[in-house]
Amino acid sequence: MDLQAKKMTVGVIGLGAMGMGVAMSLLREGFDVHACDVRPEAVQKVVDAGAQRVDSPAALGKLVDVLIIVVVNADQTDTVLFGENGAVAHMKPGSVVIACATVSPEFAKALGKRIEAAGLLMIDGPISGGAAKAMAGEMTIMTAGVQAAYDKCQPVLEAIAGKIYRLGNEVGAGSVVKMVNQLLAGVHIAAAGEAMALAIRAGADPEQVYEVITNSAGNSWMFQNRMPHVLAGDYTPLSAVNIFIKDLGIVLDYAKKNVFPLPLSATAHQMYLQASAAGHGLEDDSAVIKNFPGIKLPESKKQV
Amino acid sequence: MDLQAKKMTVGVIGLGAMGMGVAMSLLREGFDVHACDVRPEAVQKVVDAGAQRVDSPAALGKLVDVLIIVVVNADQTDTVLFGENGAVAHMKPGSVVIACATVSPEFAKALGKRIEAAGLLMIDGPISGGAAKAMAGEMTIMTAGVQAAYDKCQPVLEAIAGKIYRLGNEVGAGSVVKMVNQLLAGVHIAAAGEAMALAIRAGADPEQVYEVITNSAGNSWMFQNRMPHVLAGDYTPLSAVNIFIKDLGIVLDYAKKNVFPLPLSATAHQMYLQASAAGHGLEDDSAVIKNFPGIKLPESKKQV
Repeated sequence: MDLQAKKMTVGVIGLGAMGMGVAMSLLREGFDVHACDVRPEAVQKVVDAGAQRVDSPAALGKLVDVLIIVVVNADQTDTVLFGENGAVAHMKPGSVVIACATVSPEFAKALGKRIEAAGLLMIDGPISGGAAKAMAGEMTIMTAGVQAAYDKCQPVLEAIAGKIYRLGNEVGAGSVVKMVNQLLAGVHIAAAGEAMALAIRAGADPEQVYEVITNSAGNSWMFQNRMPHVLAGDYTPLSAVNIFIKDLGIVLDYAKKNVFPLPLSATAHQMYLQASAAGHGLEDDSAVIKNFPGIKLPESKKQV
Repeated sequence: MDLQAKKMTVGVIGLGAMGMGVAMSLLREGFDVHACDVRPEAVQKVVDAGAQRVDSPAALGKLVDVLIIVVVNADQTDTVLFGENGAVAHMKPGSVVIACATVSPEFAKALGKRIEAAGLLMIDGPISGGAAKAMAGEMTIMTAGVQAAYDKCQPVLEAIAGKIYRLGNEVGAGSVVKMVNQLLAGVHIAAAGEAMALAIRAGADPEQVYEVITNSAGNSWMFQNRMPHVLAGDYTPLSAVNIFIKDLGIVLDYAKKNVFPLPLSATAHQMYLQASAAGHGLEDDSAVIKNFPGIKLPESKKQV
C-alpha cells in the first residue's frame, strides 16, 4: 500500500456492477473513499466495507481529489456533474474527473471542454471487462487526457484497472476505442445467438457446438462468455439487451453524423430492438437468441 | 511411430494449403502416402518429402486403405470420387473415405449414402485451423461416422489433427458444426473490417485499436488473426474473399431450404459480394474492409 495514495480522497458516483467493483478496489488499496448512489442499499454495501456515505454529487465534489463517474450513460453523467446538486461547481481547482460511462466521442470532447472551463482536469476513461474483473481491480480502462490529469490520478487508475490504455492527450480518444469495442461486442453476441440458433435448428447438440466453436476459428470473447447463459437457459441479466440498444445506438448515431455505413452494426441493432419489442429488453443480452423462431432452446435447470 | 500405422496406405487428393499439411503430417508419422493433385508442382513437393505420385483418383483408389479428400468444395469432392477417373469405383471394400471440404450437411449425408452403397465407409470430416496448424498435424477436425470407420482410420486422424471432435454416428453432423463455425468466422471477419474502418474514420490509431481490442471483450479469433493483414497493408490471400462467398452461401442456402432467418450472415455475405464485385475476390478475406469508403487504410511496407 502506497502511503501517498492512502491520503488521496476519491469519490465514486454510481455503484452498479462496475462502480461497486471500483469502490471496493479503491478501499482494498487504502484510499479514502466517499460514495454516492440513488440506491441506499448499494451505498450501504460500500459503507460496510469502509467507505463514507455522501448524499449528493455536490457534497461529494467538495471532498475529493479524484472523482470517478461510473453511471450508465451521457445523460446521467451530465446530471451528476452539471445538474442541480452536480459535483463540478463544488470541486477543488485542479482535481480530476474520470468519466467511465460509454458515451459518444463528441459528448466526451464537449464534456472535457466544460470540465476544463471549470478549472478541473478530465480523464476520458470508458471501462470494459465485466463485474468480476471490476471487483478484482482488474478491469480494462481506455483512457485519454492531458499529462497533468494522469500525474494526479495514476495511483487511482492502477488501483481500479488491470490494463490502463493511454490513447492520447485529447479527451474523446478513449470513447472512440470503447465505441469500436462495443460495435464488436454487440455484433458478436448477436452472431453467437444466430449461430447457436442455426445449430439447434440443424439438430446439433448445443453443448458439443460450444465445445467445438470455443476451440475453433469461429470463436469470440462474447461467444465464449455469453453462450453458457443460453446453454443453462438462464437469462438473468448481467448486461441487458437494452444496454446494446443504447451502445449500438451510440455507434450508429456517430456513424450517421459522419456519413459512414455500418451494415453489420445496423443489423445487430435491429436484432436487439426486436428482442426488446418482444419483451426481453431487461433480460441478459444473450436473450437476443430468442428472436429465432421454431427452435427449442435449452431450458433452465432452475425451472422444475 | 506406430508400426501398425506405418503399414497403412493413405491417399491424399488435393494438395492446397490444408491438403499439403495433411500429406506432410502423414509422412512425418510414417504412413505410406500416395498423392494426387491437378498441379504437378504441388505433387512434386510431397514426392520430395517421401510420398508416391499417382496420376488419377481412380489409380489412387486402388492403392489405399484410407483416402483423404482435401479439395475446396462439393463439386470437386463429387468429381474426384464419382466422376470420370473417380476413386470410389476402384477402392477396396471396407476402405475409408475422409471428406474434408466444407460442404452442406445435405451433400455430406447424400455422399455418405453413395459411399456406403459402394461398400466403403465414410468419415464426414471438415477441418479448421489454417495452413500452419495443418502442417504441424495440429488442425481441428469435426468428424461424424460409424464406429467401423473410426476403427479403421483413427491413427490417420491422430496424425493429421490436434483436436478430433466426434459429433455422432451419422454422416452430416460434422458438416453442421463446420457450417456454424463458418457462419461465425465469416461474420467476425466482416465485423472486424467494419470496426477497424470506423476506428480509422474516427481518427484512432489502428495499431492501438488492435492492441486494446485484442485485450477486451470485443475480441474474436478472426479479429486477432486477420487485422494484422490490414495493419500491414498486405492482402496476399491466405484465405480469399471468394471463399466466404462460397461458405456463407452454403450457410444461407441451408437456412433458406429450412426456412430459417440469418440476418447477420446475409449482411456479411453481401459485404463479401460487394468486395468481390469491386475486384477484391482473390485477395485475402480481410480485404472486405476495402468496402468502406473515405478512409485511408494502412499501406503495405512492401510498396516503396
